[in-house]
Amino acid sequence: MVDILHRIGAESSTADVYRALTTIDGLAGWWTENTTAAGDDVIRFRFALPQGEDGFDMKVLETEPGTLVHWEVVQGPEEWIGTHVRFELAQEDEYAVVMFRHEGWKEAVPFMNHCSTKWAMFLMSLKRLVETGKGEPAPHDVQISNWH
Amino acid sequence: MVDILHRIGAESSTADVYRALTTIDGLAGWWTENTTAAGDDVIRFRFALPQGEDGFDMKVLETEPGTLVHWEVVQGPEEWIGTHVRFELAQEDEYAVVMFRHEGWKEAVPFMNHCSTKWAMFLMSLKRLVETGKGEPAPHDVQISNWH
Repeated sequence: MVDILHRIGAESSTADVYRALTTIDGLAGWWTENTTAAGDDVIRFRFALPQGEDGFDMKVLETEPGTLVHWEVVQGPEEWIGTHVRFELAQEDEYAVVMFRHEGWKEAVPFMNHCSTKWAMFLMSLKRLVETGKGEPAPHDVQISNWH
Repeated sequence: MVDILHRIGAESSTADVYRALTTIDGLAGWWTENTTAAGDDVIRFRFALPQGEDGFDMKVLETEPGTLVHWEVVQGPEEWIGTHVRFELAQEDEYAVVMFRHEGWKEAVPFMNHCSTKWAMFLMSLKRLVETGKGEPAPHDVQISNWH
């Protein structure tokens, strides 16, 4: 089992970051504009890619205001299904720090390298959203390679 | 043992990326302006941080033009010493793809989360350098948190 790890700090409150991680408007402001509630604690994220529409359905397993958001991937690319995504939040002086972990990958396939870099860019988009009011969600996300 | 993985693709040739990874000028153009040759196949990278000067000495273990650059960390933060950094290059149509791995971390400490996100930003700086001629090396690098 291998994990993707990241850490960012936004000059904001953990309450603001928590809101960006737990509301449809918030999530649509940094990850993908095509974010919808799918019922039964599932949030649906969709991306228009050159090869067609793609995306993930996340089941919200845990939320603790200002502290934790924990999802399980219930639909998406085969490598993602059954993996977990955790955002742990903590206030450190003027920074809301996000410790990020996408855990439970079966093996370190090249797609995992891609997703690791892409997560970094989206976490920077989250930082920008809470700091400035404007993130870079798909389809306005930073392109990192031929895999977008 | 846990690894940091990333993947970027630059609209350029693997020869250009290889040059940016194996010359002092190239490395100073995307990672840190304070890059110097330290003899015996060691390259010295230094960063001015709020808490003082910090950095890494890398021993170049392998270089294969247009294909591979492989370093061992011989000086730096305790968590880095003895870890290895690998850049594997491949041309995919108009993209020079970099498969990146910083491997051999003893444990997934919070500093590893930080370094993972920071590597992503520096690899995007490498992409920008070979695509546009101008990267974002330290001290002009993107700040990601209270840890810089």
